[in-house]
Amino acid sequence: MNAQMIDEYFKNHREEHLEELKAFLRIPSISSLSEHKDDVRKGAEWLRDAMEKAGLENAKVFETEGHPVVYADWLHAEGKPTVLVYGHYDVQPVDPLNLWETPPFDPQVRDNKLYARGASDDKGQTFMHVKAVEALLQLNGELPVNIKFIVEGEEEIGSPTLPKYVEQNKEQLKADLIVISDTGMQGPGRPAVCYGLRGLAGVQIDVKGPKGDLHSGLYGGAVQNPLHAIVEILQSFRDKEGVIQVEGFYEDVLEVSDEERAEFAALEFDLEKEKQDLGITEDFGEKGYSFVERTWIRPTLEINGITGGFSGEGIKTVLPAEASAKITCRLVPNQDPDDIVAKLRAHVEANKPTGVTVEISDFDKGQPFLTPYDHPAIQAAGRSYEKVYNVKTAFTRMGGSVPIVAVFDQVLGLPVVLMGFGLSSENFHAPNEHFHLENFDKGLRVISGYLFEAANL
Amino acid sequence: MNAQMIDEYFKNHREEHLEELKAFLRIPSISSLSEHKDDVRKGAEWLRDAMEKAGLENAKVFETEGHPVVYADWLHAEGKPTVLVYGHYDVQPVDPLNLWETPPFDPQVRDNKLYARGASDDKGQTFMHVKAVEALLQLNGELPVNIKFIVEGEEEIGSPTLPKYVEQNKEQLKADLIVISDTGMQGPGRPAVCYGLRGLAGVQIDVKGPKGDLHSGLYGGAVQNPLHAIVEILQSFRDKEGVIQVEGFYEDVLEVSDEERAEFAALEFDLEKEKQDLGITEDFGEKGYSFVERTWIRPTLEINGITGGFSGEGIKTVLPAEASAKITCRLVPNQDPDDIVAKLRAHVEANKPTGVTVEISDFDKGQPFLTPYDHPAIQAAGRSYEKVYNVKTAFTRMGGSVPIVAVFDQVLGLPVVLMGFGLSSENFHAPNEHFHLENFDKGLRVISGYLFEAANL
Repeated sequence: MNAQMIDEYFKNHREEHLEELKAFLRIPSISSLSEHKDDVRKGAEWLRDAMEKAGLENAKVFETEGHPVVYADWLHAEGKPTVLVYGHYDVQPVDPLNLWETPPFDPQVRDNKLYARGASDDKGQTFMHVKAVEALLQLNGELPVNIKFIVEGEEEIGSPTLPKYVEQNKEQLKADLIVISDTGMQGPGRPAVCYGLRGLAGVQIDVKGPKGDLHSGLYGGAVQNPLHAIVEILQSFRDKEGVIQVEGFYEDVLEVSDEERAEFAALEFDLEKEKQDLGITEDFGEKGYSFVERTWIRPTLEINGITGGFSGEGIKTVLPAEASAKITCRLVPNQDPDDIVAKLRAHVEANKPTGVTVEISDFDKGQPFLTPYDHPAIQAAGRSYEKVYNVKTAFTRMGGSVPIVAVFDQVLGLPVVLMGFGLSSENFHAPNEHFHLENFDKGLRVISGYLFEAANL
Repeated sequence: MNAQMIDEYFKNHREEHLEELKAFLRIPSISSLSEHKDDVRKGAEWLRDAMEKAGLENAKVFETEGHPVVYADWLHAEGKPTVLVYGHYDVQPVDPLNLWETPPFDPQVRDNKLYARGASDDKGQTFMHVKAVEALLQLNGELPVNIKFIVEGEEEIGSPTLPKYVEQNKEQLKADLIVISDTGMQGPGRPAVCYGLRGLAGVQIDVKGPKGDLHSGLYGGAVQNPLHAIVEILQSFRDKEGVIQVEGFYEDVLEVSDEERAEFAALEFDLEKEKQDLGITEDFGEKGYSFVERTWIRPTLEINGITGGFSGEGIKTVLPAEASAKITCRLVPNQDPDDIVAKLRAHVEANKPTGVTVEISDFDKGQPFLTPYDHPAIQAAGRSYEKVYNVKTAFTRMGGSVPIVAVFDQVLGLPVVLMGFGLSSENFHAPNEHFHLENFDKGLRVISGYLFEAANL
């Protein structure tokens, strides 16, 4: 078996693979919405069946306190390393639905891109690992390494139960390295291996005022308006440049070396093109840091939603009884999510508006993650990309979080290789999510090649 | 015919009157929502039929560019004054629907209160005027004064077309005074004639950032978040005590005399009870003004709603493409709504956050209104209340707006008598709106008596 045979195999099975992926994408496995609980389970069961079909063994849907985990393995490469592949089969919510050009769970190919919620993040990329195994087993009857899959259904809600599963199943998950495809490439045709991710701390702020909605004409000016109160709290979090005003927020931030910042600066990042792609006329953020640095090595605090009062057509002169906001902070090494939530609470306590009660609930947390970019497993990933894409692989960090990465790092003590195939333009977490099939095709070959590289680690 | 006969008549017809009013309240005539356009028309037609049944003449639904106006008259009291009665048959939206104990358009009597959207504001009170006319015509075959009704269907959206109707129909609306029952009493058993109302200026602020929703982990900190931008704008409008920071906002405010403020202070306003009723632990607002003064003689700026980002269960790490807010200002004499909107626009222009576009639309406007409280028509209203309620009538101002009042004042040049029967606890503009039937019963007698008082003006 050589690379050409593998390429040929993927070409010949392309339509069949795409049809299978579409079936996977038709399942609305939105983990954050309780009405989709059964759909999330359907996603797990579909994946288990696909793993069995691929030739993986011990494929099983494992129960957790939340959505289930899917496991499968193939462990017959005696004396060879064991690769643990992690992915997630849950997806983000789809609102605002009216902005989707085609329905989010009716996958369609347009212009060699596959449009559907989850096409890129992360069903498409997880599916590629299963198909790479299937290809090698079909062609050769065996794999160059031992392999284990652990695919969860709660990544988009911050992986609340997987850490416990990992703690309790260390033996099942024992491996030599972990491979994850849930990050992005540097740009079209520009592969990247990511060696650092930001962490996450998410909170909801609920402000309550009068016991019922009031007429704003009769009570405005004499009763604190929960909307004004929440605005006061939210405005206190940041200054106009986005610098976070929460006391001690930056105190644990690990300084990034000049050398590393020089490497970021050398990346061909085109700010003007980025602004054009995003539809903005000016960028934003902390002075002294580049666009890339603001999203990779600096922590953030972003409002994700505000709710309160009347949102229909026209106006309603209401002073609402309550208002809510959702915010998430992205954290960098060595910030700790629990510590940050405590600081947010203290900040709100110190800046509490008069005349209302304020409650803070914390839900989503993830540790930031960093691994040396000169680790052999990382370098091997770079070579696998280069053989297929024929360009130098970039070694990058990313602004997003895969909270479970830090858990794998800390609990299993393994090197984590983040080799993603998504593009930042692919609208994951937004309407019209899609996946460039060029990277689907090349990615299958990169992943297959990496299993041979991994055999020599 | 004497007062006793009239009282007897209303007692005997009570059930019949309530059943008729319930039929009126079942029509969901929400003027602000375009899907209820036909219902608003049904409300007009129902009222026209009720006026004809009452013995009023020339009852007709008049078209406007918006929702229709209902007119009727009885003009056979030669040599006597003509009373113009104004009311509105449109109602506020009903969300949040889940907070209603019984459906808003399924009127029900509980504990001698009638629960339904519009029960108090203003179908119930308008209906009382029609029934007072009907009673006098039934009992006596004639009225002590000439009477005209003008009832609109756009009060809850700021009466956008009625001013033009009034301008174009000065002859039809010619009268000696105007009576309006759309304000509140001073408290249970404590009648009030209102001689001043605040004006209104409402705007919507739309902030647009990137062309689509972004992942807040990948772009947060480097792209301006429209939610943070709208928070920045909204926070800039007021200080923490509610004092409005818009340049020149207070410059046209007419000073209120110490004498008038002393009269407000003498009203039996129970702040502790008010706070308990509202479910708040502390009041709020401009230092140096009482609760009553903050709502009667000081202008306000209140956020009525904020929309943007994710509002579902859990979190979604989104940096939304846009955010919106609705705000309304209550104005006092001599502030001008157009001038205030211009000042709001200038303020937003001067405080525009970076990285976003901001649009302001103005929709609702109403001039503030003030008439001398010693005017004979006002004093006569006070006497009519006292005969039925057996207590001294208070002469008050109110925080709300009936924008059309200023138009009647300015275009027709007539004294306006605001004699309302609502209570501030009756949840108008909120879930579980209701009307105390004690004031329905007494109000019918007060209104009937006032027509006799008006004959001598």
